[in-house]
Amino acid sequence: MTETLPLHDMTALVRPQLDRLNRELVEDLAPGHREMLPLIEHVGGYRGKQLRPMLTFLSGMAIRGASHGGVLGDDVVTVAKVVELLHTATLLHDDVLDSATVRRRIPTVNQLSGTEVAVLLGDYIYARAFHMAVALPDPTAARWLAETVRVICQGEITQVLHRFDSAWTEAQYFQVIAEKTASLYGAACRLGGHYSIGNDGAPEARLRALEEYGVELGIAFQIVDDCLDLDGDEKVVGKSLGTDLSKGKITLPLLYLLRRGPDEQQRLEHVLGKPEGEALRLLRSEFALEHAIAYALEEAQRRIAKAQASLSVLPPGPAREALNRLAGFVTTRRL
Amino acid sequence: MTETLPLHDMTALVRPQLDRLNRELVEDLAPGHREMLPLIEHVGGYRGKQLRPMLTFLSGMAIRGASHGGVLGDDVVTVAKVVELLHTATLLHDDVLDSATVRRRIPTVNQLSGTEVAVLLGDYIYARAFHMAVALPDPTAARWLAETVRVICQGEITQVLHRFDSAWTEAQYFQVIAEKTASLYGAACRLGGHYSIGNDGAPEARLRALEEYGVELGIAFQIVDDCLDLDGDEKVVGKSLGTDLSKGKITLPLLYLLRRGPDEQQRLEHVLGKPEGEALRLLRSEFALEHAIAYALEEAQRRIAKAQASLSVLPPGPAREALNRLAGFVTTRRL
Repeated sequence: MTETLPLHDMTALVRPQLDRLNRELVEDLAPGHREMLPLIEHVGGYRGKQLRPMLTFLSGMAIRGASHGGVLGDDVVTVAKVVELLHTATLLHDDVLDSATVRRRIPTVNQLSGTEVAVLLGDYIYARAFHMAVALPDPTAARWLAETVRVICQGEITQVLHRFDSAWTEAQYFQVIAEKTASLYGAACRLGGHYSIGNDGAPEARLRALEEYGVELGIAFQIVDDCLDLDGDEKVVGKSLGTDLSKGKITLPLLYLLRRGPDEQQRLEHVLGKPEGEALRLLRSEFALEHAIAYALEEAQRRIAKAQASLSVLPPGPAREALNRLAGFVTTRRL
Repeated sequence: MTETLPLHDMTALVRPQLDRLNRELVEDLAPGHREMLPLIEHVGGYRGKQLRPMLTFLSGMAIRGASHGGVLGDDVVTVAKVVELLHTATLLHDDVLDSATVRRRIPTVNQLSGTEVAVLLGDYIYARAFHMAVALPDPTAARWLAETVRVICQGEITQVLHRFDSAWTEAQYFQVIAEKTASLYGAACRLGGHYSIGNDGAPEARLRALEEYGVELGIAFQIVDDCLDLDGDEKVVGKSLGTDLSKGKITLPLLYLLRRGPDEQQRLEHVLGKPEGEALRLLRSEFALEHAIAYALEEAQRRIAKAQASLSVLPPGPAREALNRLAGFVTTRRL
């Protein structure tokens, strides 16, 4: 098992870059119309762990080994901002799709200002993020991230098309979470490395190692997220729980339960689609949820080990060590 | 008054390019997952007048005058496809915001497959369009169009924030339709000219003339669209009518009525927000709608004259003449 430290120990290395990112992000979104400002500031309140920009910064340091001295160019900061904005845009639309009312302990935009504003503000942030990406002299980030957003949407659409589908397989589930979640983690890491070294200098083996690290970490992260929706504590997690159940999304713990026999499957199909609170109560009282969660977390643990193994291609140093520890943090998180 | 010809007479010049665009568009959207194909094909059924790509092609020809021989490079076709895809993405999200059930005589995606799929498919198409734009060697289109989409969303959000706002002014209305509609027309024209001539060769005065032409045309187009929502024939227009009234969107004909006195204003405020059919019946029976429509169409006519005047900077030739006639077509359309 990986030793796990508090998250802030792992982020100390990139604190100056994260602070700069947060200073600049609201200004980057600054609207032409003053009346949009409260919306932009509200979205600023969603600020979470900022794992993706952290990964971009750490990847940018890790690809150069101990020699970099912690200095990262402006373009790496821009890439990190674009990744964070794209993530924010997907959150806004996810909350519309899930009819979620709370995100990181504050009301969602759809709850506060309606579906229309939430959809349009998501589009606005996507467009702003792409505009920042295409302003970079090297078009790699713009190209990679436009394709990544297409893949994210493809994964999300596939998931929606298979709601309440109890014939859904683990292979399909892993494919969907690789697309909808892990692809952006992979991009965050790969592009951090790419823009740290510069256009022609980045060795493909290291870039691929960073990308694989990000993808496996992202898959583990989504598995844990899916577990939290079923057995988390709403006050700790800071968002509505049970939405997957209520929306008929078949996640890994549910796939485990569905395979326990036709009786279990029939009873579970009955729970899917019920209102969140009722669905959660039934799931927690009438099913072997703890076994299902343990099964899913074992898979997450395997993915983390894979992520950590891929780091071996990179030169040793504090950034590689931070990436290694960060991966260990994912399965221990309760928020 | 401009002589108006059937639309197909004006499009004959760009028919080969439009045919190529339509052949390529479905393939460009081709999903990694086969199960998305029916959705992509359904959206293909929305194909309308394709004014925007037509403008891109005609602008590409017009900027070079009679000398071009009708030949346009691949990059102009790519720009036209990107513009059409961005427009399609906005339609998908507009239909979600308006809860519209019919678009160009077929069910909307939100009606057919639900809000989730419509939001995500819009995002998917945005991302694909940006990906095509950033694949161009010259980054001008990607940069200009990312900013244009940001401006479109800004206009749409402003409109939503001012629904049911009877203090809304004509200046605010014109600003919003310039942003949400006309900016993409301006981009379609300017970028058609830009990519026809190549990076350093396009004279700024001609590019600006094309952009102004597109913007004024787009404003006129939106005014006519707003009129059709109030006095059109649903069978002819091919989409739900009365949605602006029902959603509380204050368009130019309504601004005219709101200014006729406090009594008229109060009665109109009562109509806003009612279900579409009832709101339309009340508006048509109890208000001087024909005067309001005539007032709005006069403004559209002025914008068209402005659009046509801006063409004088361009060299004479069949493409400039087609743009001139196309502008005349906008106020006569009933669909």
